[in-house]
Amino acid sequence: MIERIEGGVCAAKGFTASGVHCGIRKNRDKRDLSLIYSVCPATAAAVYTTNLVKGAPLAVTKAHLADGTARAVICNSGNANTCNANGVEIAEQTCELLAKELGIDAKDVVVASTGVIGQPMDIAPFAAGIPALVSSLSTEGSAMAAEGIMTTDTEMKEVAVAFQAGGKTCRLGGIAKGSGMIHPNMATMLVFLTTDAAISPKMLQKALSCDVTGTFNMLSIDGDTSTNDMVTVLANGLAGNAAIDAEGEDFTAFMEALNSVTVALCRMIAGDGEGATKLLECTASGAKDLETARTVAKSVICSSLLKAAMFGADANWGRVLCAIGYSGADVDVNRVDVSFRSAAGTVEVCRNGAGVPFSEEEAKRVLLEKEIEILVGLGDGGYGASAWGCDLTYDYVKINGDYRT
Amino acid sequence: MIERIEGGVCAAKGFTASGVHCGIRKNRDKRDLSLIYSVCPATAAAVYTTNLVKGAPLAVTKAHLADGTARAVICNSGNANTCNANGVEIAEQTCELLAKELGIDAKDVVVASTGVIGQPMDIAPFAAGIPALVSSLSTEGSAMAAEGIMTTDTEMKEVAVAFQAGGKTCRLGGIAKGSGMIHPNMATMLVFLTTDAAISPKMLQKALSCDVTGTFNMLSIDGDTSTNDMVTVLANGLAGNAAIDAEGEDFTAFMEALNSVTVALCRMIAGDGEGATKLLECTASGAKDLETARTVAKSVICSSLLKAAMFGADANWGRVLCAIGYSGADVDVNRVDVSFRSAAGTVEVCRNGAGVPFSEEEAKRVLLEKEIEILVGLGDGGYGASAWGCDLTYDYVKINGDYRT
Repeated sequence: MIERIEGGVCAAKGFTASGVHCGIRKNRDKRDLSLIYSVCPATAAAVYTTNLVKGAPLAVTKAHLADGTARAVICNSGNANTCNANGVEIAEQTCELLAKELGIDAKDVVVASTGVIGQPMDIAPFAAGIPALVSSLSTEGSAMAAEGIMTTDTEMKEVAVAFQAGGKTCRLGGIAKGSGMIHPNMATMLVFLTTDAAISPKMLQKALSCDVTGTFNMLSIDGDTSTNDMVTVLANGLAGNAAIDAEGEDFTAFMEALNSVTVALCRMIAGDGEGATKLLECTASGAKDLETARTVAKSVICSSLLKAAMFGADANWGRVLCAIGYSGADVDVNRVDVSFRSAAGTVEVCRNGAGVPFSEEEAKRVLLEKEIEILVGLGDGGYGASAWGCDLTYDYVKINGDYRT
Repeated sequence: MIERIEGGVCAAKGFTASGVHCGIRKNRDKRDLSLIYSVCPATAAAVYTTNLVKGAPLAVTKAHLADGTARAVICNSGNANTCNANGVEIAEQTCELLAKELGIDAKDVVVASTGVIGQPMDIAPFAAGIPALVSSLSTEGSAMAAEGIMTTDTEMKEVAVAFQAGGKTCRLGGIAKGSGMIHPNMATMLVFLTTDAAISPKMLQKALSCDVTGTFNMLSIDGDTSTNDMVTVLANGLAGNAAIDAEGEDFTAFMEALNSVTVALCRMIAGDGEGATKLLECTASGAKDLETARTVAKSVICSSLLKAAMFGADANWGRVLCAIGYSGADVDVNRVDVSFRSAAGTVEVCRNGAGVPFSEEEAKRVLLEKEIEILVGLGDGGYGASAWGCDLTYDYVKINGDYRT
């Protein structure tokens, strides 16, 4: 039983959060520094971008999480702290300043940055902002923290659930930033998760690593894998459940709760992709194995041509077939079925690799909705997978034609 | 000595061409059926799309070229003859109708189609158009043929050169269609090449297969590998050179001539990509091997974020580093140098993986040109490669948002 609840990263017991404007961004109305804090030590796990060019904060976070514990997450927007001369130094100083203010060990701080790559970074705004950031920590602070990590996002992204483990009610929630340079591989954009479930560092990492392969790694806005992607989860154990330290019923319950939160965040990130007007979800079923299902679903969601067609509400299913054909998956294209589905109905457009007659008007009505499912049947087995993306629009071009200036 | 000459696919001796409107397209002012013809039998070679979903004409052409000879190439635009019920039948009937009209064997016809996928196809327009197509064959017909294969192309693409082999002047020319669904892999969009050089089928195939790895396979408009990509070359031997049947000086001369034509066509296709306002050429140098250079150059040219930045004339070099980092190539990102170059000058933006100060005004001036070079130094060896692409614009979205309707 997983129940959706309010509170984002503060839904779990013992977590507070805040977000302030510290001066990294010029616009004083935009928060640019966020904090998540656990009143007691928490086990922690993370996954990181596979990009060889990595943001400096990732190296610092990785070192800090080597012991599997953390108490605080600090993240700025407006500057990626990547490909500059003093990145690691700034990230370390940030952790030290925060640790001093909170009275904790700097090694218990997770640090992250998002924004433009290759810009000089200064410690001054952090030094100026951290006291206010700490003093404004609150159990109501999730939304402020979610706001502080936004870049070109148009909507704040937070979600939380309650679930049962070992007879206790546990909570798990998260915030995310998405929008552009999103094509995670092994990790993703920035996602910060908190839970009051008690779980060992090893099982927490296992749960997270396993989950991202079917969630954030199946998400693409523009095919560009960022240098700063990170998903991190802190578990402080205040729910009082017997610590989850092996596979079993409780671990399964935890995995299900985690998945419900990460899928919800994936959908939010995809639907709020840069310039997006539509959330696209491709579900490939009937695959001979999971890898094939995932490869097909992700290839479809990444096709620029299909993304543009969806923007135009054009049922150009040939582009779905084309994307399946070049995906690299071993499929029999003569068995492929394709339908489009939305709140307005379902329209079948292709059966056994060839077109079937359909009403263009009905297809238009289905595709004019905000959330579109592309259903691909492979007729070759029992495996399935979903991938999430968005349409390609004029605004994507506009946002990225002059993002930096 | 390679000299640029006029005449496209009719530059080589003994080749004629034509293009007519036969009724596949509704717009009567747009030619939709093209023919290239050799007065004598020619050796022939081709490379095809790697997409598992393949246009029906490709299967028919592959069978016809099994013996390494051909005399005619017929190609329609407006319908891809792919993912429909009767595709192979239509393609075979087309070859038969044409062969009868020309008085040749149907097995000596190369057939190709480009346009929308999954549409029913009728033999009637072919039957109606072929007599006029044949009667209008002319040594001046290259432009008409180039026009007949255009889809969303805005410019006709043809080029030809003269070169020396075995003491004889030989000619090699080609026409191409590009624009969208272009991310060739192993083959490409539609490119038809003719030469009057004498060369064996084996060496012709070898020359073509080798050339495309560094030319059409290094070209990307939108990351979508088409179902109908094909490059084919016919060599009728009328130049009178001793037939090239092994490696050596003449084969090298042929390879150089071929490369000069294919690179010119690549640049034309990239510069006329759907919605493009700029030709982008990324050259990666200092790589430890050719594969690394190619992987890096192609990853940069494929980045949606970089393509949008180039549209906005924004020197956002972090996106170049990002694309190198996720390319999968084994590079030391701390040694990477990046410059932008155009007719307006050169601006260095990154040295050893970190930004260097540059004038934004100067960068803007450089990037406002129509042809932009992105120069990437890897500092790790002596190999280099180029890739071609275009910017991502509002018009790409517009064209593909309602291509089919």
